[in-house]
Amino acid sequence: MGIFGKGRDSAPVGGVDLGGTKIATAVIGEGNEVLGSARRPTPKQGGPADVVAAIAESMSEAATAAGIATAALGGVGVGAPGMADRATGTLSGAGNLPDWSGSFPLGPELSKLLGTRVVIGNDVQVGTMAEYAQGAGRGFDSLLGVFWGTGVGGGLILGGKPWLGRGRAGEIGHTLVKRGGAKGLNGLRGTVEAYAGRKAMEARARREVAKGRKTILFKLMEKRGKESLTSSIWHRAWKKEDDLACELLDRAVTALSAGIASAVNLIDVEAVVVGGGLGVRFGDSLVPKIFEGTGPYLLEPDRPPVMAVAGLGDDGGVLGAAMLVR
Amino acid sequence: MGIFGKGRDSAPVGGVDLGGTKIATAVIGEGNEVLGSARRPTPKQGGPADVVAAIAESMSEAATAAGIATAALGGVGVGAPGMADRATGTLSGAGNLPDWSGSFPLGPELSKLLGTRVVIGNDVQVGTMAEYAQGAGRGFDSLLGVFWGTGVGGGLILGGKPWLGRGRAGEIGHTLVKRGGAKGLNGLRGTVEAYAGRKAMEARARREVAKGRKTILFKLMEKRGKESLTSSIWHRAWKKEDDLACELLDRAVTALSAGIASAVNLIDVEAVVVGGGLGVRFGDSLVPKIFEGTGPYLLEPDRPPVMAVAGLGDDGGVLGAAMLVR
Repeated sequence: MGIFGKGRDSAPVGGVDLGGTKIATAVIGEGNEVLGSARRPTPKQGGPADVVAAIAESMSEAATAAGIATAALGGVGVGAPGMADRATGTLSGAGNLPDWSGSFPLGPELSKLLGTRVVIGNDVQVGTMAEYAQGAGRGFDSLLGVFWGTGVGGGLILGGKPWLGRGRAGEIGHTLVKRGGAKGLNGLRGTVEAYAGRKAMEARARREVAKGRKTILFKLMEKRGKESLTSSIWHRAWKKEDDLACELLDRAVTALSAGIASAVNLIDVEAVVVGGGLGVRFGDSLVPKIFEGTGPYLLEPDRPPVMAVAGLGDDGGVLGAAMLVR
Repeated sequence: MGIFGKGRDSAPVGGVDLGGTKIATAVIGEGNEVLGSARRPTPKQGGPADVVAAIAESMSEAATAAGIATAALGGVGVGAPGMADRATGTLSGAGNLPDWSGSFPLGPELSKLLGTRVVIGNDVQVGTMAEYAQGAGRGFDSLLGVFWGTGVGGGLILGGKPWLGRGRAGEIGHTLVKRGGAKGLNGLRGTVEAYAGRKAMEARARREVAKGRKTILFKLMEKRGKESLTSSIWHRAWKKEDDLACELLDRAVTALSAGIASAVNLIDVEAVVVGGGLGVRFGDSLVPKIFEGTGPYLLEPDRPPVMAVAGLGDDGGVLGAAMLVR
C-alpha cells in the first residue's frame, strides 16, 4: 500500500456551527485557514429535517466559495446544541432548534446530502476545544470555556483533553447561583443561565416593559428589523447607558462571576475563556468585571485562574467543529 | 540485581487521617488490611509542631499494636486538610488545625520523627481515592466524593484518575447555593458548607439557642462530656425528633442536594459517594434524601448519577492515606 497524492488527511474539511439563531459553515484548510464560508438564519419553523437541509445548503455555498465540492471534503464536523452522540451521529434534546427536543440522526442525514462523512459534537465543547488548541486557551493544561450567548454553555478541557463526563459535562449555565431564584427558560431556577442567558434577559426585559419600565432596547430592535434582542442591540443600549439594559447586564455579570467561581472551586482550572455572542461583544468591557466579581466567591481569591476573552471570535465554532474530523 | 525477601513494596505502610477533631492512624498490610490502629484528639492548642508530635505518637502506638517499628514501615501517607504539596511535603492553609493558616513542612518533620518517608495529600482527595479503589466508588470511571463532616470537603476522580486541578480541586463545600446567603466560617457566603458543615450548623444552633430556641442538642453534648456537637449527638437529637436539629439537618440536606446537582451539571460524573462523619452517620436516612433533592436542580433529572454512601466508613481516611505511599 502506498500513499498517492495529498491523501485524505490533507483535504480541506468542513465545519458547521449550528446555533439556535444562525447556522455558520466554513471550509477549513490544512493550516486552519478559512477557505470559504457561508451563514444563514436557523429555520424557526419545521423540524430537524429542515434544519439539516439548511445546513447542507449553507455548507454547499461555503464549498462553492472555496472552489471544492462537498463530496471532496475530508469530512464535515458539526458543533450542535444539546446532546451529541458521536458514535451514532444522533443529536438529542436540542431545545433551541425547532421541534428537536427528541432525537434525530443529524450525522447520517447530513452525510447523505453532502456526500462525505459527518462527525457531530456539542457546540460549546467543540468551541472550547478550538480555544484550547488555537485560541485564548493555548498553553493551559486545564480550561473552562464559558459561552455567554442565547443561553450560557460551557466546555471543559482537563489535563489537555476534553472532559465530557457521561456526554454532557461543562454545563456551567446550569450551575446554581441562587436557590429559589429566577426561573430559567428550561424551568430550572436560580441558575447562571436564568440570569445571564440572552433569551432569559430578553424575557425579563419584556416583562419589565409590560410593567411600564422604559428602555430603548426594543426601539433599537425594531429600527434594525430584528425579532429579538441581539448581542449588538444589548451592546448599543449599554453604550447609551440605557437603565434597564445596564441593570440586566449587571445581573448577568454577577451571576456569571458567582457560577464561574463555584466551578473554579470545584475543578480548579488554570484558565477560563469567555466566548459566545455576548461574551465576545462585551469582551473588553464586562469580562473584566466578571473576573473581578469572582473574588468574593473564590475559595482562594489571591490565586484566581487566568480569565481571557475567546480569541477566535465567531470563527471558534466552525474551527472547533472542523477539528472533529481532523 | 536480585530481589531478596519480601522487598520494600510489600512492607506494611502507615496511613494518617489528620482531621480538625481527631488524628486516626493505622498500619496497613499488603492486602489493605488494618494491622494496627490508634487515634487521639487533634491538639486544640499550640501549633503545627504539636500536631506533628501528636501524629508521631499515634502512629507509633499503631505500629506497636501491629508489632512493627515505624522505621520499618514502607512509608507513611498523611491525608490532611488544606493544601498539600506532595513534592515538598508542605501543608498550607489548614484552618481547622491550630495556628496552621500558613505553611509548615509536615512531611519532612514527621519523617524525622518516624524514621521513614512521608507522603502527604489532601484528606478528602485521598478519601475519595480510597472509595474509588476499595469502597463504594469501585467500578465507576468518574466520581465525586463528598465528605460531610466538620466542614464539607470533596474529591474528584475523572477518567479513573484523581483530578487535582492546580492542587485544590473538589471543593464542593465551597460551591455556591445561595448568593448572599448564610455566612460560612471562612467568610464565604451561601456555600454548601455554610449550611451543611457541622461547625456552621453548631454555630447556627448556638445562635438560635441564644435567641431562646429550645433544643436537646446541648444537653446531649453536656451529658456525653463533649465540647462540640458531634455527628452522634446530631444523630441522637434527630432520632428524638428535636425540632431545631431536624430543621438544621433539613437545611443541610437541601444545600448538599443543590451543590451536588450543580457539580453534576458541570462535570457529569457517573457516581457521587457521600462520606464524612455526618455522611456516614446519616447514610441510611438522609443520604437518600440528598439524592432525591438533587432532582429539581439537575439539568437531566431522569439521568442522575449513582449516589452511594462511603463504604469504608471511618477507615477510608487511613486507607486512602496509605495509598499515597503504595
